[in-house]
Amino acid sequence: MSISKKKMILDLDTGIDDALALAYALADPDCDLIGIIGSYGNVYVNQGVQNSLDLLSLLGAEDVPVYLGADHSSQTDSFTVLPVSAQIHGNNGVANIQLPKAQRKPEQKNGVDFLIESAHKYKDQLLFVPTGPLTNLAAAIKKDPEIIDLIGHVTLMGGALTVPGNVSPAAEANIHQDPAAANDVFHTRLPLTMVGLDVTTRTLLTKKETKCWRALKTSAGLVYADLVDYYIEAYKTTNPHLHGCALHDPLAVGVAVDPSLVSKIKLNLKVDTETPFEGRTIGDEAGLNDLSVTTDVAVNVDKNKFLDKFMNRLTPLLAAH
Amino acid sequence: MSISKKKMILDLDTGIDDALALAYALADPDCDLIGIIGSYGNVYVNQGVQNSLDLLSLLGAEDVPVYLGADHSSQTDSFTVLPVSAQIHGNNGVANIQLPKAQRKPEQKNGVDFLIESAHKYKDQLLFVPTGPLTNLAAAIKKDPEIIDLIGHVTLMGGALTVPGNVSPAAEANIHQDPAAANDVFHTRLPLTMVGLDVTTRTLLTKKETKCWRALKTSAGLVYADLVDYYIEAYKTTNPHLHGCALHDPLAVGVAVDPSLVSKIKLNLKVDTETPFEGRTIGDEAGLNDLSVTTDVAVNVDKNKFLDKFMNRLTPLLAAH
Repeated sequence: MSISKKKMILDLDTGIDDALALAYALADPDCDLIGIIGSYGNVYVNQGVQNSLDLLSLLGAEDVPVYLGADHSSQTDSFTVLPVSAQIHGNNGVANIQLPKAQRKPEQKNGVDFLIESAHKYKDQLLFVPTGPLTNLAAAIKKDPEIIDLIGHVTLMGGALTVPGNVSPAAEANIHQDPAAANDVFHTRLPLTMVGLDVTTRTLLTKKETKCWRALKTSAGLVYADLVDYYIEAYKTTNPHLHGCALHDPLAVGVAVDPSLVSKIKLNLKVDTETPFEGRTIGDEAGLNDLSVTTDVAVNVDKNKFLDKFMNRLTPLLAAH
Repeated sequence: MSISKKKMILDLDTGIDDALALAYALADPDCDLIGIIGSYGNVYVNQGVQNSLDLLSLLGAEDVPVYLGADHSSQTDSFTVLPVSAQIHGNNGVANIQLPKAQRKPEQKNGVDFLIESAHKYKDQLLFVPTGPLTNLAAAIKKDPEIIDLIGHVTLMGGALTVPGNVSPAAEANIHQDPAAANDVFHTRLPLTMVGLDVTTRTLLTKKETKCWRALKTSAGLVYADLVDYYIEAYKTTNPHLHGCALHDPLAVGVAVDPSLVSKIKLNLKVDTETPFEGRTIGDEAGLNDLSVTTDVAVNVDKNKFLDKFMNRLTPLLAAH
């Protein structure tokens, strides 16, 4: 473990593309995955945390701690999984596969406290990558605003600036779960990159790649091939024009470590909180002529470079377990 | 008149910023303004055409022909000026000022036919700059699809990709007038740059500049100072956060001649035609993974460079008339 290596914390609502992000973060030699915080979204938080523990076990990474985060948005008292989430990720978030159960439990410490402590400990070495709602990040900022100036960079999967949303014509699912939390985060001076549908729906996986994993004949290769084949089938119904499944969450991990994978524009963002635009990520008119902009929005991606990196890192990990 | 100079046709619904665009196109030594087509929008088409004739006369350009274009959108039978248009531009489009009446009338030929003939005559030397609805351009393409491959470049003022709209949270006024026409135009392979609210609300004029024009003590200097002062007062009500008035239409002229004024992203666009998103310009999911993209969207602007150019060109023209 090199001293100069970046430390990554993932904040996952562990469905299928979160499972890919988890494996990619483990496999990337340029960062150390120091912990996973659980969130709600694709699944309930307890299910997501169990999925993370089980996947880490499958991939031989029993040393990466997993923490419970928020179980519902900052503006509600409870959370219910949307039918479309169950359709895309399976009822259990992992394609209805019964993963071998991990031998351990989540940590006692709360995920929000783990994030705050890590910000103070690792400062600008810390990469925070939320791939679900921004509830935990907003809660951490509220509890300890100092972390805004400590965290090295936030690279989030969420939002849609130049393309329509996926839960409404305006809104992407992660931001839509907790628009107020996202709006709070965007109005801080956190150094932040939004990796939204603008780019994630351009990075696609097909059955060609899952065939390659299946041929590894390892437990992990088989599980990941099954997960992604389920995801590809779901995409045939929900996004027939794509001809593949979108690598939403893994792209955020990729961009966190290698920002050159995407082209970006600088823009102060806001999130609409009223219907029918609730959850829309859009430039904030009030900040349009500000000179200090700390938010980058990814608007295009070198898809071949990313896919090559993704496969070159994931396949050996899956081959070894 | 140099052979290599670009030929520009403006398509104006002549309100106040159209008046600025007209003067800027006349003053720019890098292009020849070969004609103006009238459209509806800020004003009725007849009023807009009269305003163009009167302004050309004021600026000593009686040789630039003016043509009547569409008087309503492709999807309606008639058109009514919106109260907000009258508020911003005055009931007559030119700040309720009585301009000295031009000695001539518009040409007999229709604006759509003028555009088609000019495309065949000037081919890739032709710059078409619509600053109102895209009704005339869509009609010309429908009548003679060959022009798609002939016109050098279209630089339109309209739309909003990364910021909210100005007639609804989703839609910018010009595109909202005729969403179907704009959608048709975006789905051709016309080489096109969208100069929308993303950039035009970053290029602002203030009373500092109008003071300078007023001090010229010429007829044109006085008229343009009065026009823009009216526009600035209206902006205080409609866009108090801007602290100035937006140079919407002149920026499109500037970018048509000097594309380096803006940074752009390549994106296949569509226009939503259903409420509440009617008139929204947004990336077309169906074209997101196409490799051939002929549409650029301006997302940032070198505002100081543009303002310097604008004032350096406009002020001598206003000083001379």
